[in-house]
Amino acid sequence: FVCAIESIAGVPKKVKKIGQDDPRRIIHSFKVGLALSLVSLFYYCTPLYGGFGMSAMWAVLTVVVVFEYTVGATLGKGLNRALATLLAGALGVGAQHLASLSGERGEPIILGAFVFLIAVSSTFARFFPGIKARYDYGVLIFILTFSLVAVSGYRVNDLVEMAHQRLSTIAIGSSTCVFISIFICPVWAGQELQELVALNIEKLAKFLEGFGAECFNKEEEGRDQKADVAKVDKSFLQAYKSILNSKSSEEALANFARWEPGHGRFRFRHPWDQYLKIGALACQCACSIDALNSYISSTTQTPVEFQERIKDACTKMSSESGKALTELALAIRMMTKPVAAAAHVASAKTTAANLKATLKITSSEITVILEILPAATIASLLVEIVAQTEKLAEAV
Amino acid sequence: FVCAIESIAGVPKKVKKIGQDDPRRIIHSFKVGLALSLVSLFYYCTPLYGGFGMSAMWAVLTVVVVFEYTVGATLGKGLNRALATLLAGALGVGAQHLASLSGERGEPIILGAFVFLIAVSSTFARFFPGIKARYDYGVLIFILTFSLVAVSGYRVNDLVEMAHQRLSTIAIGSSTCVFISIFICPVWAGQELQELVALNIEKLAKFLEGFGAECFNKEEEGRDQKADVAKVDKSFLQAYKSILNSKSSEEALANFARWEPGHGRFRFRHPWDQYLKIGALACQCACSIDALNSYISSTTQTPVEFQERIKDACTKMSSESGKALTELALAIRMMTKPVAAAAHVASAKTTAANLKATLKITSSEITVILEILPAATIASLLVEIVAQTEKLAEAV
Repeated sequence: FVCAIESIAGVPKKVKKIGQDDPRRIIHSFKVGLALSLVSLFYYCTPLYGGFGMSAMWAVLTVVVVFEYTVGATLGKGLNRALATLLAGALGVGAQHLASLSGERGEPIILGAFVFLIAVSSTFARFFPGIKARYDYGVLIFILTFSLVAVSGYRVNDLVEMAHQRLSTIAIGSSTCVFISIFICPVWAGQELQELVALNIEKLAKFLEGFGAECFNKEEEGRDQKADVAKVDKSFLQAYKSILNSKSSEEALANFARWEPGHGRFRFRHPWDQYLKIGALACQCACSIDALNSYISSTTQTPVEFQERIKDACTKMSSESGKALTELALAIRMMTKPVAAAAHVASAKTTAANLKATLKITSSEITVILEILPAATIASLLVEIVAQTEKLAEAV
Repeated sequence: FVCAIESIAGVPKKVKKIGQDDPRRIIHSFKVGLALSLVSLFYYCTPLYGGFGMSAMWAVLTVVVVFEYTVGATLGKGLNRALATLLAGALGVGAQHLASLSGERGEPIILGAFVFLIAVSSTFARFFPGIKARYDYGVLIFILTFSLVAVSGYRVNDLVEMAHQRLSTIAIGSSTCVFISIFICPVWAGQELQELVALNIEKLAKFLEGFGAECFNKEEEGRDQKADVAKVDKSFLQAYKSILNSKSSEEALANFARWEPGHGRFRFRHPWDQYLKIGALACQCACSIDALNSYISSTTQTPVEFQERIKDACTKMSSESGKALTELALAIRMMTKPVAAAAHVASAKTTAANLKATLKITSSEITVILEILPAATIASLLVEIVAQTEKLAEAV
């Protein structure tokens, strides 16, 4: 019981934290409330209610189910819902008409067979990866509407009237959601994706900039200072780990972003796939960094004179790659300025070339290879990322 | 147009492929069809229809929305839906009663305020990570039912009768789904999770067993053979990459598995968190392997005599870890036999100890460190995995 009270007492703190992390979440909650209140006006206003009757309920249902956090997701769900309802409604009315030709006895059997067939084939269609990614919700609504129309047609007399009412209320619900999500503090999935990719690259950059110092200087400092440094550093040394798991959210955002119309700095047909490619490269880079990170603890075992020999080259390499990555992240964020981005790309390229040159000089000594190789991986990744950003700069 | 015909012609091939990959998908489709047909019987049977009226539609709706691929997901959604409907229905009737006390004019305003408040706070609650993982659908249905009940109460006279009908139809729909998903070829999320984790560890094992040969022997073979080997090898050398992205599906499966009752070899309160930990360790291990994989191409640059010196130790290390991992995967699959699993764990432990001993002997020579370090990472990971599996074997 004490435990329950404690967990309830912790709720305001949690609410505050979630709100502070992203204030748009609070705004989103109010947007949903607003949309729902607007739609329930249909019930309260007698003239409007008279036109739709009980079907007005479907507008409320649509708003609750369709309204999502980002514009792309809302738009995708709304369009899926409206189109699937239209298609399934038409098919359902047709099936109903076909079944009614077969007389009193045959009708329920034929209707049941239709529903079974549609349910089996549509459920199977949801396993197709391409359909799952973008039309999953539409197929669900298709099964739902078809069964409802086909089945209730057996009882309801004026089926076309009912289908018409339902379709218009769903259209009203969907368009309310879409309008509110676009015009009141919109959260664009495309912008979120861009932000996430840039943030991930910045995390990599921060790790690399701090890595050299962390790896080679820690023995020179005193024990007391070391504890302090460790506390400060941990945040950026561990930050890259979240990149390893960001792939699925990146893919979801890219799927949503495809539904979005051109807006703000994003003109039409933005290359979302490029972002996914950059994200995958960042993930691979984070993987190399993870391996690199596990060496930090083992460098203390290697003799000091050996460490001294590779120290400068490694520190310079990692900080240079870090700087280049910071500029790349900036270039992704400031995508509207291709001139500045081109300059960043050029500077990043020279850095990568420098890295490669350093690598060729030192690779004759096998002993240096231990620290060179991860950096070489990063350098080659960097070259790829630079190429990607170049493509991106061209595409914008 | 030609393109459209081609893509339609490709559909049967795709259907066959998806069906062959996992025949349970076809069975799942038929299960959905069966559930839907059963529920639509309510419409066709006049005595049953008389009891429920238009509310019978809600049973159809529930089946379509609740039926998911795994038992855990279906059960979770069904319970969420039934409980949220019960709670929101009761609250909605209460709010309706409260509002009706304030007279003709005040009623819609107070109802609107209630709906707005509930929508805002519930939508915000969906951002809590704990609620998002397990009760997201329940909260959605809660908002939905509350608004529907509160709003339609303004028009419908016998609200309690309506709420009662709706609740019983939803209960019928949910229980139909749950029964069919449990008793006809069930797909247990827990089993899927176990399978996925074991498969991932097997992938790691296959990579490690083949790695030594791939890395050191390729120079000895002729050019022609090399091409053949590369073709055969690629499948297992690339397989580990999918592990890096399996974390989100592991988490989803673990969430579903928590809903499932004890079944088959899984007795009650199975330690799903252990699987997640093992999965995370496997992911980390795959990360080290990714770094290791990038060295394969660079080993050709190192002199042959140096390669010869480390070749035996490395080949043995990687194949031994590979064997240990294979036995661990077997131990996870055959969890009901703790005796056999304990033997596997013991043999894995001695392998790990051997690895460590090898490491200590050779670590005095700095030149060997290049290949030793990744293996050391794997060895330490392996020790951790062994510890995890020991815990698991105790927990079963």
